[in-house]
Amino acid sequence: MNRTHTNGELRLSDVNKKVTLLGWVAKRRNFGSLVFIDLRDRSGITQLVFDETSSEAIKEVRNEYILEVEGTVHERKDKNPNLETGEIEVVVDKVEIINSAKTTPLIIADETDALEDTRLKYRYLDLRRPIMQKKLLMRHAITKSLRGYLDDHGFVEIETPVLGKSTPEGARDYLVPSRVHPGCFYALPQSPQLFKQLLMISGFERYYQFARCFRDEDLRADRQTDFTQLDMEMSFLSDVEIQTMMEEMLAKLMKDVKGLDIPTPFLRLSYEEAMNRYGSDKPDNRFGMELQEITDIFTDCGFQVFKDCIAKGGSIKAVVVPDKADMTRKEIDKITELAKKNGAKGLVTLKYMHEEISGSIVKFLTEKELNALKETLALKENDLILIVSDAWETTCNVLGALRNHFGTVLGLKKKDEFSFLWVTDFPMFEYSEEDGRYYAKHHPFTRPKQEDMKYIDEDPSKVHAIAYDVVLNGYELGGGSLRIYDSKMQEKMFEVMGFTEEQIHERFGFFVDAFQYGTPPHGGLAFGLDRIAMILSESDSIRDVIAFPKNANAKCPMSDAPTPVDPQQLEELHIKIDNE
Amino acid sequence: MNRTHTNGELRLSDVNKKVTLLGWVAKRRNFGSLVFIDLRDRSGITQLVFDETSSEAIKEVRNEYILEVEGTVHERKDKNPNLETGEIEVVVDKVEIINSAKTTPLIIADETDALEDTRLKYRYLDLRRPIMQKKLLMRHAITKSLRGYLDDHGFVEIETPVLGKSTPEGARDYLVPSRVHPGCFYALPQSPQLFKQLLMISGFERYYQFARCFRDEDLRADRQTDFTQLDMEMSFLSDVEIQTMMEEMLAKLMKDVKGLDIPTPFLRLSYEEAMNRYGSDKPDNRFGMELQEITDIFTDCGFQVFKDCIAKGGSIKAVVVPDKADMTRKEIDKITELAKKNGAKGLVTLKYMHEEISGSIVKFLTEKELNALKETLALKENDLILIVSDAWETTCNVLGALRNHFGTVLGLKKKDEFSFLWVTDFPMFEYSEEDGRYYAKHHPFTRPKQEDMKYIDEDPSKVHAIAYDVVLNGYELGGGSLRIYDSKMQEKMFEVMGFTEEQIHERFGFFVDAFQYGTPPHGGLAFGLDRIAMILSESDSIRDVIAFPKNANAKCPMSDAPTPVDPQQLEELHIKIDNE
Repeated sequence: MNRTHTNGELRLSDVNKKVTLLGWVAKRRNFGSLVFIDLRDRSGITQLVFDETSSEAIKEVRNEYILEVEGTVHERKDKNPNLETGEIEVVVDKVEIINSAKTTPLIIADETDALEDTRLKYRYLDLRRPIMQKKLLMRHAITKSLRGYLDDHGFVEIETPVLGKSTPEGARDYLVPSRVHPGCFYALPQSPQLFKQLLMISGFERYYQFARCFRDEDLRADRQTDFTQLDMEMSFLSDVEIQTMMEEMLAKLMKDVKGLDIPTPFLRLSYEEAMNRYGSDKPDNRFGMELQEITDIFTDCGFQVFKDCIAKGGSIKAVVVPDKADMTRKEIDKITELAKKNGAKGLVTLKYMHEEISGSIVKFLTEKELNALKETLALKENDLILIVSDAWETTCNVLGALRNHFGTVLGLKKKDEFSFLWVTDFPMFEYSEEDGRYYAKHHPFTRPKQEDMKYIDEDPSKVHAIAYDVVLNGYELGGGSLRIYDSKMQEKMFEVMGFTEEQIHERFGFFVDAFQYGTPPHGGLAFGLDRIAMILSESDSIRDVIAFPKNANAKCPMSDAPTPVDPQQLEELHIKIDNE
Repeated sequence: MNRTHTNGELRLSDVNKKVTLLGWVAKRRNFGSLVFIDLRDRSGITQLVFDETSSEAIKEVRNEYILEVEGTVHERKDKNPNLETGEIEVVVDKVEIINSAKTTPLIIADETDALEDTRLKYRYLDLRRPIMQKKLLMRHAITKSLRGYLDDHGFVEIETPVLGKSTPEGARDYLVPSRVHPGCFYALPQSPQLFKQLLMISGFERYYQFARCFRDEDLRADRQTDFTQLDMEMSFLSDVEIQTMMEEMLAKLMKDVKGLDIPTPFLRLSYEEAMNRYGSDKPDNRFGMELQEITDIFTDCGFQVFKDCIAKGGSIKAVVVPDKADMTRKEIDKITELAKKNGAKGLVTLKYMHEEISGSIVKFLTEKELNALKETLALKENDLILIVSDAWETTCNVLGALRNHFGTVLGLKKKDEFSFLWVTDFPMFEYSEEDGRYYAKHHPFTRPKQEDMKYIDEDPSKVHAIAYDVVLNGYELGGGSLRIYDSKMQEKMFEVMGFTEEQIHERFGFFVDAFQYGTPPHGGLAFGLDRIAMILSESDSIRDVIAFPKNANAKCPMSDAPTPVDPQQLEELHIKIDNE
């Protein structure tokens, strides 16, 4: 085939050139004996003009036929400013039909009303829609930009095993029965965590990998059976050095892919500040409506709920929603429902109209309290005030969820605005009431802050980890930590988490051994590639940036996977289906 | 940490600089009160000099301890020309022990006598050996070079599913039981073949992916449970256009990674020629000793074996091994054994000494035959002549194996010589005597040569495929084909292979449907990355270029995977272990 140009390429300066084009028929319309065809390929669309009487073949051409045409570039009379090639058209001398096409079950255009299951069943056609191609092209541009940075900064890409060992910690594993070892199973990796740390012990110093990771969890809009993470680990660097490098990498990414200059260093919020101000450990700071602390106003309050909350050491906070004092009872009920879904026992709503605060609890409040509220919250006419009084974390979480809700409702989350920030200083441990013990919040190899080690025996909950998350527009893009490299500190951590020698050996076995042969100080992080691609391509779901995703039921509507298999296959793998 | 330089970096021009270095103690030796330490990191080794009396800490330092040192660069008296930093040493003022190390179970040096299972059990230490690091760094350099070419030539990297559908054709699948769909299984991909063809139907035009592929087959030196292939597919290109692009890509690779200019275009051999001349469809042409056709000499032969062979339409060929006429009976027996292992019923060996051919069958041959042999084979003093008479394919295969054997024995396979070639024109079909039907030799979607379609009904074995393999030094690096894009031709192929409508639907289902919506002419190929890395890094096994490989028993001696799992995990997956 002698294609001379792609369909996105021709301009006024090409007029009078003889060209050969290839592509799919995107649209065909007749005008007397003239036939106009929009010919499409990956790069765009070119308008073709035929004289129908000149060719028998052209009569049968319909949408999605593949043509090879020879012709001459002409200036268009009716130019199309929305098309890059809109100033020209190609007057065709010769046409060859390369392939025909049945009528497609979904229309090949950016706009579609096809159901998602239809789109997934005919994914090869869904991906023919230019908007979908652009998303996958952008995903490639993203990985290319990230690789470029890492390759230029001494990182080595190393592949780690996909058939690994099942571990009891973490999410549910996907298992792969072994044919050679009856009754034994491989597990697909939830992340290359252990391997990347081993590579630091090996002395590779800087590692990266675009790693496929697997978690057998129920799916949501931003979850798939497997996902791709940009996984990194570095030796001999501090947390701030790692963060600075990542900021450079992300700034380059935004420049390469979106043409935007984003400011560095990013805003850094401690976990505590993020929770206090945004009610979230992944705050979206493209908009305000921050949480405000009002516990002190009610230290001696007549409203029993507030009084009890303070007595229990809880926290009272408010979010002020501008111009929403006119919400109906029904609307308020919905908000209250949302608060409860996020763990609140109740939600106090007040309105500020005609310079007065109104609402059912006002009768329990003093003039002084109302004035303090007015002043602290800097109330403006028609403000809606949402108040939650509960344990600190619950108060933060609930108001964070409501803030998020109103951010969406009020259209404050601009898709073409990109706000990066770090959340740092996460607590090292989480206490499980159920199990009566501490768990590592990040993972058991995370390095604690040295200055907090004085609390380790008396109150482990006061110990913070050198862990950090990157947040973009309210999504956790990724996170990581410095790791422990001192065997004694590691032992102490295991002790706090109540592990016995035997449990340590069973759970962490060879990995703990490895640490004794000269482990460098190291740390790293991982970014969710699907999520980055989703946000930068301004998509609503990660399914839009994955070529062949599973549906919410973990099924591929195109290939039908997973399916029943031949009984002989199971026999070879020494397993049976358990029908009970 | 304030590292100013790496350990491979300092030169004479740095003398008198104050430097801070980090790394592992590779060697320590005392000389009076002076201590010499070789400090190692990824980039190399620097010699440190300490005054032992100056520091208490230095006394306890042993191999594989991690140090941070400050000191001054001095010119060395006894320069080491084998070391890039061999002209300098660093006289240390200040040392900090970053971490200690137990005695390692294997020595951290290029040369090792450790058993492979020890190396794999302590892989993190095996990978600390500089020679192993170099191999993985080269692997990264290889992928970087290949990506660079593809990114510059309009290829899009697209990830395809790891959790796919099990198909009855091909090798044995690894299966993954589904929790959500009881009794159903995903399969790990043997290759992204269907998906990459679907991406062409989607109109991506040029696709690539470094894809992890899985085949549950028994392992060999160049096989693993999973392997990485550079997978590519292109639309609207001819086989020669695809091959030319690949030659450019590989020439760039050899330049980037080995600094070598390799000639393009590569030699092209048809399958038939490759078999006739080298007895292999992946010939190593770094050396001669080609197979020679001698059937015609024996058309009227008194030696019954030759006579029968010719009567059955077989082929008699010879390989001449120079300077090996002095092989002992025992050595010849070994060669005969090897011939039989490769399918020969027997092996005729002749010797050419004192201008005479000798050997047990000489008494059955005429003077004319002996003279013809001498002339055709251009015999030289002390030549050993190996003759096989059998069906054409067997004759070729056996002599190809013997040629290979002597190529190794005679040291003709130079590891630093790289010879690329194409093998083309493979037969489209293989006939299975057992099943009484034709199978596709490559896969059922391979495009046949148009000019052979006249034989399709009368003798399908005469039909060649537009399929091509790239061979490097006797290894198949990769291969591919143009694919069928015409539904009618596809139907014809299925007919030849004896598939019913139902079988077609069951086996190829949605994929055959997809072809009806405007499929472009397309083709592609895949390269085995592990094998490329093995050859270019001059390694003996692909395990040397995989960070964490499995052993020959499909086990990871480090993590112990695969292992038994918790019964509850199996219950959730609706499977039981079958102990029968």
